[in-house]
Amino acid sequence: RVMCSVPRLKRAVLSWVPVLSWLPHYSFRENAIGDLISGCSVGIMHLPQGMAYALLASLRPVYGLYTSLFPVLVYFIFGTSRHISIGTFAVISIMIGSVTEKLGPDSNFMGNGTNGTVDYDRRDAFRVQVACSLTVLTGIFQILLGVVRFGFVVTYLSEPLVRGYTTGSACHVCISQLKYLFGVKPARFTGPLSLIYTLVDICRLLPETKVPELVVSLVALAVLIVVKEVNDCYRQKLPLPIPIELIVIAATIITHFCGLTSKYSIDVVGEIPSGLKAPQAPDVTLFSDVIGDAFAVAIVGYAINISLGKTFGLKYGYKVDSNQELVALGLSNTVGGFFQCYSVTSSLSRSLVQESTGGKTQVAGVISSVIVLITILKIGSLFEDLPKAVLSTIVFVNLKGMFKQFMDVPTLWKTNKVDLLVWLVTFASTILLNLDLGLAVSIVFSILTVIFRTQLPRYSILGHVSGTDLYLDTDTYKEVRVIRGIKIFRSSTTIYYTNAEMYLEALQEKSGIEIGKLLTQKKKRDAKLKRTQEKEKKKAKKEAKKQVRPISHLSNGTFSNESEMNERRVSAGQKRQSQGNGVESLTETPTNGRVNWAYQHDVTVSDSDSDTGGHINTQASHSGDEEKATHSIILDISTTSFVDTVAVKTMKNIFRDFGEIELDVYLAGCQACVVEQLETAGFFSESIPKSRLFVTVHDAVLHILHKLVSERLTIRGNS
Amino acid sequence: RVMCSVPRLKRAVLSWVPVLSWLPHYSFRENAIGDLISGCSVGIMHLPQGMAYALLASLRPVYGLYTSLFPVLVYFIFGTSRHISIGTFAVISIMIGSVTEKLGPDSNFMGNGTNGTVDYDRRDAFRVQVACSLTVLTGIFQILLGVVRFGFVVTYLSEPLVRGYTTGSACHVCISQLKYLFGVKPARFTGPLSLIYTLVDICRLLPETKVPELVVSLVALAVLIVVKEVNDCYRQKLPLPIPIELIVIAATIITHFCGLTSKYSIDVVGEIPSGLKAPQAPDVTLFSDVIGDAFAVAIVGYAINISLGKTFGLKYGYKVDSNQELVALGLSNTVGGFFQCYSVTSSLSRSLVQESTGGKTQVAGVISSVIVLITILKIGSLFEDLPKAVLSTIVFVNLKGMFKQFMDVPTLWKTNKVDLLVWLVTFASTILLNLDLGLAVSIVFSILTVIFRTQLPRYSILGHVSGTDLYLDTDTYKEVRVIRGIKIFRSSTTIYYTNAEMYLEALQEKSGIEIGKLLTQKKKRDAKLKRTQEKEKKKAKKEAKKQVRPISHLSNGTFSNESEMNERRVSAGQKRQSQGNGVESLTETPTNGRVNWAYQHDVTVSDSDSDTGGHINTQASHSGDEEKATHSIILDISTTSFVDTVAVKTMKNIFRDFGEIELDVYLAGCQACVVEQLETAGFFSESIPKSRLFVTVHDAVLHILHKLVSERLTIRGNS
Repeated sequence: RVMCSVPRLKRAVLSWVPVLSWLPHYSFRENAIGDLISGCSVGIMHLPQGMAYALLASLRPVYGLYTSLFPVLVYFIFGTSRHISIGTFAVISIMIGSVTEKLGPDSNFMGNGTNGTVDYDRRDAFRVQVACSLTVLTGIFQILLGVVRFGFVVTYLSEPLVRGYTTGSACHVCISQLKYLFGVKPARFTGPLSLIYTLVDICRLLPETKVPELVVSLVALAVLIVVKEVNDCYRQKLPLPIPIELIVIAATIITHFCGLTSKYSIDVVGEIPSGLKAPQAPDVTLFSDVIGDAFAVAIVGYAINISLGKTFGLKYGYKVDSNQELVALGLSNTVGGFFQCYSVTSSLSRSLVQESTGGKTQVAGVISSVIVLITILKIGSLFEDLPKAVLSTIVFVNLKGMFKQFMDVPTLWKTNKVDLLVWLVTFASTILLNLDLGLAVSIVFSILTVIFRTQLPRYSILGHVSGTDLYLDTDTYKEVRVIRGIKIFRSSTTIYYTNAEMYLEALQEKSGIEIGKLLTQKKKRDAKLKRTQEKEKKKAKKEAKKQVRPISHLSNGTFSNESEMNERRVSAGQKRQSQGNGVESLTETPTNGRVNWAYQHDVTVSDSDSDTGGHINTQASHSGDEEKATHSIILDISTTSFVDTVAVKTMKNIFRDFGEIELDVYLAGCQACVVEQLETAGFFSESIPKSRLFVTVHDAVLHILHKLVSERLTIRGNS
Repeated sequence: RVMCSVPRLKRAVLSWVPVLSWLPHYSFRENAIGDLISGCSVGIMHLPQGMAYALLASLRPVYGLYTSLFPVLVYFIFGTSRHISIGTFAVISIMIGSVTEKLGPDSNFMGNGTNGTVDYDRRDAFRVQVACSLTVLTGIFQILLGVVRFGFVVTYLSEPLVRGYTTGSACHVCISQLKYLFGVKPARFTGPLSLIYTLVDICRLLPETKVPELVVSLVALAVLIVVKEVNDCYRQKLPLPIPIELIVIAATIITHFCGLTSKYSIDVVGEIPSGLKAPQAPDVTLFSDVIGDAFAVAIVGYAINISLGKTFGLKYGYKVDSNQELVALGLSNTVGGFFQCYSVTSSLSRSLVQESTGGKTQVAGVISSVIVLITILKIGSLFEDLPKAVLSTIVFVNLKGMFKQFMDVPTLWKTNKVDLLVWLVTFASTILLNLDLGLAVSIVFSILTVIFRTQLPRYSILGHVSGTDLYLDTDTYKEVRVIRGIKIFRSSTTIYYTNAEMYLEALQEKSGIEIGKLLTQKKKRDAKLKRTQEKEKKKAKKEAKKQVRPISHLSNGTFSNESEMNERRVSAGQKRQSQGNGVESLTETPTNGRVNWAYQHDVTVSDSDSDTGGHINTQASHSGDEEKATHSIILDISTTSFVDTVAVKTMKNIFRDFGEIELDVYLAGCQACVVEQLETAGFFSESIPKSRLFVTVHDAVLHILHKLVSERLTIRGNS
């Protein structure tokens, strides 16, 4: 027993701590150089991105550097994707930023009394606490979801939703950075429509633009865009992309030595403390304030992470475990939260660089961390004169990919209007309701589209394609032939509570059988019959007989045949079951010879033989004029994938009501799981025997035609 | 043109004002007596119910009488249901009550200063204003929804949801009435969990129970229950149910003449002003405060109304127009709101009485209004000494039907666990989050269950039922035969964003083809091959040839056959299309003789002929060991009812990836509307020609087997 559990334990450990499974087999020859170059490139990208995104999160730049360090190391140990670069990301940063500004607004940190100055140190320290609490809670959510194997929640974020959401977030990011670009100080807004208010406020402040900052921004922007374009164009020819993020160094040097700060009072990054801080427990009392945002960050962060991870996994043929990714990301966040980091996810721009510069494993991540660590420990203070405007331009340039997603709109317009709607609603709600509420609204809307799509199905009457056993939509395919007296009805989608009533209505409309009217007619007729009978009983009995006989005679006849047929059907079914071992209700064995004969014979019979036709007409004369010939209805429910109580009730009502006006109803094309659900729901009973269930429409048609022939024979025999 | 438009106008008027279509043909002989008796019975019920439910709505009893009067008359003109009794209803009343108490709490109406007495007159006047505004807004919502033909919104309220909701509401009603029963005055609570708080508070106050009120309640309750049971038991024998609601008269008389009010200070109804009030416009400034509740009331009121209306419509075979009902109810509410009424809907208990006492048309409603009118004008003031406790007992007894719905729980447990979950979540959220928020949560949850149900489909590999053209699940049906080399894969539900990834995973798992691994292997092999080829080119060329040939030869061979087959298939397809007029891709015409021959022949060939078998194996040797024979995959997507971008992308990836490892992918069983959506989405291209689409699995199988035979012949011919 112990012997047996050791390998199992080992397997479990390896699956929870993936680094143990791949690091021992790390091939220096194959991977080391690629990982080293890739790690350095990514590390250099981490520096300005970390600082820039920290500003987005309304934190001091150094916290972005911390965030680029610790979580990467944790992910190295627990992650399963080899190519993604964990760290700061624009969308997550802005989500964090909205929380830190909401919980720690300037107004809370006014100095003693009302002297009007904000105590920035206290404010920033509080905001770090908020961000760390949020991050730890995010991590805990992710770990919990991962442990209970709930990685699938991310499937609720469909592709149009994620793209609309990230595009909307990009707009938020953009507008939050405009203030640095123009050097203005708009008021802070929170809650719905805050984006619009901020934009309006910035426009109002435009006349106060600080020209020096604008110039710095425009120069930096121009350089960044040109070099990025060069990188894109010569991607094939360049051994490495030009590390244009190093523009920050140039900008710092220029600012420092030209004394731009003092001359033009350009807003710079400011103090960057050297060295690491001791880990600190998050403020648990803040958890209740950030719980909603933490959940949103957990979901969005994971969604971005897993989609990128799966893309690389598919490209390079390795497996990215969605639940383990959730745990890895959760641990990165939880541990990071103790080290003054904020929430992380993988960044598209860095991951692409990591992959394209030859990174093969997460060792590249470790090397990038080393670079970040060196910066924090030794050269961080050199960046103190870096203008914030330059950092914003880096943010802007990195948003390019997200703004490209606006091209989804024309594409989706052409390909899928419902998904376009999801995209637009997500985008609009993200813009108008901000990132947390917007996400919730988008998810609900996206789920609602599934309802919309299944709520208005296409209903059709099926006809027979001659020479085959196919039954196709009579509206679309003109040459299919409707079999006389049999209506085959199909809904294009599953029947459930939102469309069950419509199913019944469509069935009546398409088949031309108005069940309500017919039932009333029948009741009146029955009542009249009863009255007549009672009257007649009181009087003499002879004259009444003629009037009464047709109905009673026929129904008697039908019933005797019915029961006889039932017996026959059951025995056939049993025979078949013993052959097919559970292939239920294949009552009419369609072996080649017999089926063809039976089928052709029957069709001819019901089409040409006036006797049978007459019989059908007689029987149908109870049921109004239009649907003279209809004696059977086959409901093709092959598209039904689950059954709820409303669907069962509707089906039962159809069987009962149509049964009352002497129409036989059959079910065809029922999936095995649907049959099980119908059984559990107590659908089958004496009035709806299981023999009404056929595997295909053709089987049901053959059965009905057989039954007709037998009835005809019985009637002939009787007469 | 004018001639033509007159009947159209007439039709429109008749459809908007249904009374014009039936009242002129009103048959006195048939209906008058029934309607008279029924109207009197319902009118008598209206009196105590109206007063009792007004207390539920936190209004003075006389407003319940108004509500039983005006809306009924409006509904008489515009309604399409003949049997329902419009008026006060417990659930709606409690919803109104929660709003009136929220917006007009006692604390707002403290007398001048803090002398502790509440100005009840001012409070009640304000509450009436709130209720009227809410009612008018409810009516406007309903009219708007009706005019834009949005009656279908009610379909989102599935049956388990409505039953869970009304049961939850009944609990609210019950607890709100306990205070009258025990004569205690608990504190008012609003917001989530207020029900729990109120209950706790009542329990706390139990020691202060006023014994006289409790005695009155218990006596009234005992009498009511006994008489109701007698009514139920002897329903067949009694010509009319005993109008036990008249207990209020007895109670009033006893209270009045025994002087209970002064002796035991029993809480009585109080002043009932005689006469009607002049209509008054609602306070528009309150609209913004009640908009959410108004929408909830509009939806719930309509849902209850239409479900009852449809039930009677089905029973008596007349049509209840859902949109016209919405308009009628909306007009009743809007007009009612001007006359100090609060929101109405049909009440189950009164409607059942109206029907069972012989009511045939809405004339019964008018007669009941006359009785209510007489009461208001003449005898209302007689009820001033009616104890409120007696009214509560009437409410309690009328809740019996709703509490019976607790029996749904065991029933649903047996029949449908998901619907049970909907019931329980609805009930719990109604209890805990109150009636407005609870409803929203329930609807969202109910919609989510559709996602749950389609998110985890059953995936299966299909096998052939010998002697037929059926393909069934190999797991369920043991005797079906898997056709060698062909994997037929089916999902039990539609493929869309929540399950698309799982579809791909299940396909790989069920078919045993690990696409990622195989692709990597192929890449390595290709790279190796390239390297080898390059090496060989540099060296001499002779030794290398043997190693290279098998793959290059085979793939060439396959491709030439492929294109040839494509041509053949296309021509066959065209022939078929001209025959079948749009029956697409029925490429292998399964006419009886040919199909059987081709089929049987092919199966034998592929099973026994070593040459073909060898060929398959050769081809499959590229694709790992387990799936030696797999050369084709058929995706049976007959259960797919709509297509979103994620599904299209997944399908495209399947075609691309499996194509790369030389597996042919086919689609079968595609519904016409799905084909259209795939076309719009740009699914079909050169790499995925439309000829990969087959109407049935059998067609696809036949095509593949044909192709194999042709290939074999070509290879034989070549060799």
